[in-house]
Amino acid sequence: MPKLDISKAPLKTGSVYPEPYAGDMKGRSSLRLGDLAGLTQYGVNIVVLEPGAVSSLRHWHQNEDEFAMVLDGDLVLIENDGETIMSPGDCAAWKAGVANGHRFVNMSDRPARFLVVGSKAPSEVATYSDIDMMIHIDGGKARFTYKDGTPWDGPR
Amino acid sequence: MPKLDISKAPLKTGSVYPEPYAGDMKGRSSLRLGDLAGLTQYGVNIVVLEPGAVSSLRHWHQNEDEFAMVLDGDLVLIENDGETIMSPGDCAAWKAGVANGHRFVNMSDRPARFLVVGSKAPSEVATYSDIDMMIHIDGGKARFTYKDGTPWDGPR
Repeated sequence: MPKLDISKAPLKTGSVYPEPYAGDMKGRSSLRLGDLAGLTQYGVNIVVLEPGAVSSLRHWHQNEDEFAMVLDGDLVLIENDGETIMSPGDCAAWKAGVANGHRFVNMSDRPARFLVVGSKAPSEVATYSDIDMMIHIDGGKARFTYKDGTPWDGPR
Repeated sequence: MPKLDISKAPLKTGSVYPEPYAGDMKGRSSLRLGDLAGLTQYGVNIVVLEPGAVSSLRHWHQNEDEFAMVLDGDLVLIENDGETIMSPGDCAAWKAGVANGHRFVNMSDRPARFLVVGSKAPSEVATYSDIDMMIHIDGGKARFTYKDGTPWDGPR
């Protein structure tokens, strides 16, 4: 596999989130570099956030390590402890199972990009810190529940 | 875990290779970002190559996916098929088990850096494409053999 032709990377837009949260992901897209290269053990994506866009709901992973490096622009990283300005070259990482909900927000007036790496665990649970929702992924299928484990059926 | 303080990342110099190959790794160092963050599922390192330095012997991994992105400077990627110039933002990746030996060489007159991600498989075998040597890693312990599996005891 020579140098990756990033222009050929699968482009993901939209969101797996149920409404009303899917709509909040407008202005976010990601280039699936790991998929382009045939990697199966972890995902590698370049996420592009237009001005005002967010990377995700604030969340943390039960089983998957996550790593991010800002490539272009300025982003605000929001975690349990507050906000951190992140500029190109700045890195952050979240060890699996640590309940520190995080997301990036582009509060600037130009697009920003970050590289993100996440393990591909056989099964995964992620918890959304700011709302009563969790995602459970098994065998590639996602289902959402409230934090008490009952099926998600709208914000409460 | 807020933004990583890269200045606190463990710095690795030297090489696990036996001589005469360890000496060939002069001018290479790496910042262990994944270790700094406590990640266990994959390694994330920033490798710094001084002018003339190489990233490794040309090798491929049996069990571990590998991904690299050039951060600063210009590097030459050497693979089975030849040489490719890699500039900041350029990426390459090697799926586990694909016998495409690769390494980076800094043929420029200034330092270069790349980010590299590699899975941490429970056991691993890497094959060095240009010499009669393999490395076997089990439980964190490394041993070298010839390609016929007998213990390595000097170049042949």
